[in-house]
Amino acid sequence: MATTASMIGHPYLPKGAILSGGTFTANSWDVLSLIFAFGAGCTMLLGATLATARKANPRLEQSDQLLVLWFVLTGSIHCFFEGYFVSNHTVLASQSTFFAQLWKEYSLCDSRYLTSDPFLLVIESLTVTIWGPLSFLCAYLIITSSSYRHPIQALVSTGHYYGNLIYFGTSLLEDYASGKKYYRPEGMYFWGYFVGMNSIWLVIPGYCLWNSIRETSKAFSGAKLEEDGGANKIA
Amino acid sequence: MATTASMIGHPYLPKGAILSGGTFTANSWDVLSLIFAFGAGCTMLLGATLATARKANPRLEQSDQLLVLWFVLTGSIHCFFEGYFVSNHTVLASQSTFFAQLWKEYSLCDSRYLTSDPFLLVIESLTVTIWGPLSFLCAYLIITSSSYRHPIQALVSTGHYYGNLIYFGTSLLEDYASGKKYYRPEGMYFWGYFVGMNSIWLVIPGYCLWNSIRETSKAFSGAKLEEDGGANKIA
Repeated sequence: MATTASMIGHPYLPKGAILSGGTFTANSWDVLSLIFAFGAGCTMLLGATLATARKANPRLEQSDQLLVLWFVLTGSIHCFFEGYFVSNHTVLASQSTFFAQLWKEYSLCDSRYLTSDPFLLVIESLTVTIWGPLSFLCAYLIITSSSYRHPIQALVSTGHYYGNLIYFGTSLLEDYASGKKYYRPEGMYFWGYFVGMNSIWLVIPGYCLWNSIRETSKAFSGAKLEEDGGANKIA
Repeated sequence: MATTASMIGHPYLPKGAILSGGTFTANSWDVLSLIFAFGAGCTMLLGATLATARKANPRLEQSDQLLVLWFVLTGSIHCFFEGYFVSNHTVLASQSTFFAQLWKEYSLCDSRYLTSDPFLLVIESLTVTIWGPLSFLCAYLIITSSSYRHPIQALVSTGHYYGNLIYFGTSLLEDYASGKKYYRPEGMYFWGYFVGMNSIWLVIPGYCLWNSIRETSKAFSGAKLEEDGGANKIA
């Protein structure tokens, strides 16, 4: 494919990166409008989720209500926002839809989203098809106080945590090993977008995983005590 | 870096791939000798593990003895064999140690191991530092019938399963999307080495994960019944 001016006429690094589809269309919305609209959408989703969860299970503890919000939010981001990337990655750079504008803004800290990077396509496809649906399932299991809640919470959170480590690692290693940067030099892109936003998927899943491991160990300790108690009674 | 005949004088695909370190030294051991020696090493390790596990916990069920063998085997492969790759990836192609010869043989189905592929370096580094030690911990938790056994078994198995899906995916997607093959065309390399060997880390972790999810759900059901029983007694 020939490298034309229109192909590299974009703000992304590394310099000269060829965007998928070949044409770049600059965003028509400014950053604050994009963030505000995204935040408004999330707020509506979370409000509706909270009302539904409280109605479905009025005895749900506050910490569990927060986790239901988390799993519905992350599930929606996986299925819809990341799903949009997986479906449209070949033409994302030239699109002007709301989701495409968000992806073009985010890509300032990771241009791999606009170049159909094979690793990102694989991990995002798995996120959309596995972690998205399982996140919704987890929210449902928390609301219904299911005995499968902690195994699924741990499963999804391990996926989030490990996936994020690999995601961070692949970008940072190329930078470290060969100086190839996928993020722009301004601090807000690297620290704000890349580190800041993605760290959410380390901190909350880290807490969820820890919480599930402890609760599960307690459940097994209880089951074992009960078993030993039963054995003693028989003896 | 200039591409010289010595650099591309190797049996790996894609054609013209530049191996890290630049020099390729052909293996001095034939395939059967390598497999036999590796198998003999694994057999000795498994024999010693079985004897130790039985001595430490004579009441350990047979299915749990098998899982102890699995976690010690996979932990050893992660820490030592994959650890060797992470430490020596820049010079692997020119080395003639036993582990290097094994890696050069395996690389016939995935040349990324000889080119310091960034994704592989990241996922292998995480495997060596996280899943390796946790595999040994899991074997210990099974032997000691710890209440942390299932959470850690599920954690490591999710890591194995998800990591393997991404590993398979990245190689196959590049083949599918752009015809770039990292494996040689002979069936034994793709089906025997790439699919066959790696599938072990889908099948066994898949079973372990399923087993842990079911056992954990049972433990929570038991704990809940106990709780409800207690509540009824008070009422």
